[in-house]
Amino acid sequence: MALIVQKYGGTSVGDVDRIKNVAQRVKETYDAGNQVVVVVSARSGVTNELIGRAKALNPQPDEREMDMLLTVGEQETIALTAMALHAIGVPAVSRTGTQAGILTDPSHTRARITSISGGDIQQQLAAGKVVILAGFQGYSAEGQITTLGRGGSDLSAIAIAAALKADLCQICTDVDGVYTADPRLVPDAKKLDEISYEEMLELASSGSKVMQNRAVEFAQKFNVVFEVRSSFNNNPGTIVKEEVASMEDVVVSGVALDKNQAKIVVSDLPDRPGTAAKLFQVLGSAGISVDMIVQNLGRDGKANMTFTVPREDIYRAEKAVTESFPDEAAGKLFEASDIAKVSVVGVGMRSHSGVAATLFEALAKGSVNIQLISTSEIKISVGIDPEEAEEATRLVHAAFGLGQLPA
Amino acid sequence: MALIVQKYGGTSVGDVDRIKNVAQRVKETYDAGNQVVVVVSARSGVTNELIGRAKALNPQPDEREMDMLLTVGEQETIALTAMALHAIGVPAVSRTGTQAGILTDPSHTRARITSISGGDIQQQLAAGKVVILAGFQGYSAEGQITTLGRGGSDLSAIAIAAALKADLCQICTDVDGVYTADPRLVPDAKKLDEISYEEMLELASSGSKVMQNRAVEFAQKFNVVFEVRSSFNNNPGTIVKEEVASMEDVVVSGVALDKNQAKIVVSDLPDRPGTAAKLFQVLGSAGISVDMIVQNLGRDGKANMTFTVPREDIYRAEKAVTESFPDEAAGKLFEASDIAKVSVVGVGMRSHSGVAATLFEALAKGSVNIQLISTSEIKISVGIDPEEAEEATRLVHAAFGLGQLPA
Repeated sequence: MALIVQKYGGTSVGDVDRIKNVAQRVKETYDAGNQVVVVVSARSGVTNELIGRAKALNPQPDEREMDMLLTVGEQETIALTAMALHAIGVPAVSRTGTQAGILTDPSHTRARITSISGGDIQQQLAAGKVVILAGFQGYSAEGQITTLGRGGSDLSAIAIAAALKADLCQICTDVDGVYTADPRLVPDAKKLDEISYEEMLELASSGSKVMQNRAVEFAQKFNVVFEVRSSFNNNPGTIVKEEVASMEDVVVSGVALDKNQAKIVVSDLPDRPGTAAKLFQVLGSAGISVDMIVQNLGRDGKANMTFTVPREDIYRAEKAVTESFPDEAAGKLFEASDIAKVSVVGVGMRSHSGVAATLFEALAKGSVNIQLISTSEIKISVGIDPEEAEEATRLVHAAFGLGQLPA
Repeated sequence: MALIVQKYGGTSVGDVDRIKNVAQRVKETYDAGNQVVVVVSARSGVTNELIGRAKALNPQPDEREMDMLLTVGEQETIALTAMALHAIGVPAVSRTGTQAGILTDPSHTRARITSISGGDIQQQLAAGKVVILAGFQGYSAEGQITTLGRGGSDLSAIAIAAALKADLCQICTDVDGVYTADPRLVPDAKKLDEISYEEMLELASSGSKVMQNRAVEFAQKFNVVFEVRSSFNNNPGTIVKEEVASMEDVVVSGVALDKNQAKIVVSDLPDRPGTAAKLFQVLGSAGISVDMIVQNLGRDGKANMTFTVPREDIYRAEKAVTESFPDEAAGKLFEASDIAKVSVVGVGMRSHSGVAATLFEALAKGSVNIQLISTSEIKISVGIDPEEAEEATRLVHAAFGLGQLPA
């Protein structure tokens, strides 16, 4: 008998029929002799409806009240899921985050889990019941209802799996697993059987948003092995776990594309210590997170600094730069434009050379001009023209032979 | 500075604009220097939507899960109401039933309040905040979320008013107060300035459903004076309180009509002890609550028993009677038909005679045939043909001079 945690997102529990589908899948797992904890999100759309009402009443709603409001979404789903299980003869009981003892810090709308008692979940499992746990929510030491922020239900699932020492944690979603590239862009993209936490994190931060990074980081920290799989079929998914030696045989695990980036070039910066610090302090104070950064020496011994920001921050970034460099001789905004980031990710890079060469060669063959390059230990990213980005992704995917991976 | 509890029902908080209206009213009370606790229901329609989803998944949903499900309605409203107050500069904080320490027995969907700690409500009030409390809900000693059943939000308001020793409890609803008769039937019906708990209870059980009886009984038990008033205007409402001597000057306070009744006649019952007991045990076992009961001696020394039941129970009542009296010689179902009940209510009846005569005379003048009569200390009810019921109500209302009451 294994203890399995299954998480179903908002799309998977979006309506009554989908909740029935989830119940049926949980029943199969339960009937196979397993103990099951099911973590569910709010029905898709519910959170946006609630936010809409909140904003209609108050453009800047209080964060504590926002948590009070949004947690009703999951509370509805846990009750409905329990009822659906009862209807097909599976004993089940629902638990809120508070009831499951998911203690957090008091940072409303973005709380961090500090401990998990599990409440009476172990007793309920021992009594033969499936436990349906509300994702996304916890409570503070002050007895207030808190939420874990975006992707919070994934985090709830990983965290309860860690607390209960579950044998398996399944993140059931609307994709079959983690792919070598987005299958909508790259038709021969293959599903990966397994991937390391680090690769998963690099892929996510490079635009392949299967899960939020916080949940993956939590899994890595507590060494929770989990599987990303479909809510709608029984295909095996992708196992995400600590890196093992055999993973290094695969040099590149996947190619990610992030089209939601903007490039900003600041020119005429004095080439002396403190210049970069000043620029990025200005951006940091404006709450803008910078991704890639490249510095070149420009004309007249002055430096150019190029960096990327999320596209929605481009105007705020331009404003921050312009206001902070009133004297154009000491640095000025030179260019701001959209850019796409194509990244290759793989723990095998650590032990294999030639990855950069293969990447650049593939892009050159496609006449794709590289505007920016940035690297990490297990990732190489290039910034290119958004118009060429999808074709570039296909070229790179093919160049690394990812479509040829054994199924 | 007074402590005022205001309760707003589902219609009063039915949408964003109505929540804004409630917030504005609360602000007026708060700005006048009062401490305010606001008790709110789920937005009208939400509960039915939730029940619809539950029934689609499970025709007989588990009661514990039903409570988990339905309490999201009030939780949404408290958060939205707090946000609406913040938007107009009123400090406010929401509290669930659990957070307010509304402890109940574990009877899901119909829990009884066992104690109220109030949680930190007094501290929040002392800190100058309006507290928004979720009506209808509590929690059991086992930490489970419970609900108080129909009319539960009124009960929550009365109970928290008692626990906090509030100076005033206002039940804000979609009527201006308690009337001498339903104004839709009787155009010159007058709003009552005050009424005793007992009259309120008798009117409610006679078809004037301004509030559920449980809330009024609770108010009577803990001597909570409350006011029934409109959520939409500032007219004074009706004060409901312990009977005072002056109330007896008014012989009849109101006329109530209940058209949702059915009359059942069982004939040929042996005229000996135990006959009535057997009949009503049968109905009690079937979960049917009987209202008026009249017994006559019939033909051949056998008795007829006539009683009324809620109209929705008529078929179950017929079935129970038929199955329990297989030998027609020892009692048989003689008649089952719809009936309307017109009642006059007033504490003044205790000290005034002639009420029955006035009532019967009024009906006789209108050629209304009386099928059944039942009386209590402060009420006389008659069962009549539903076709004649509305006209009869107007005749009785006029006969007691209720339309002439000083405004």
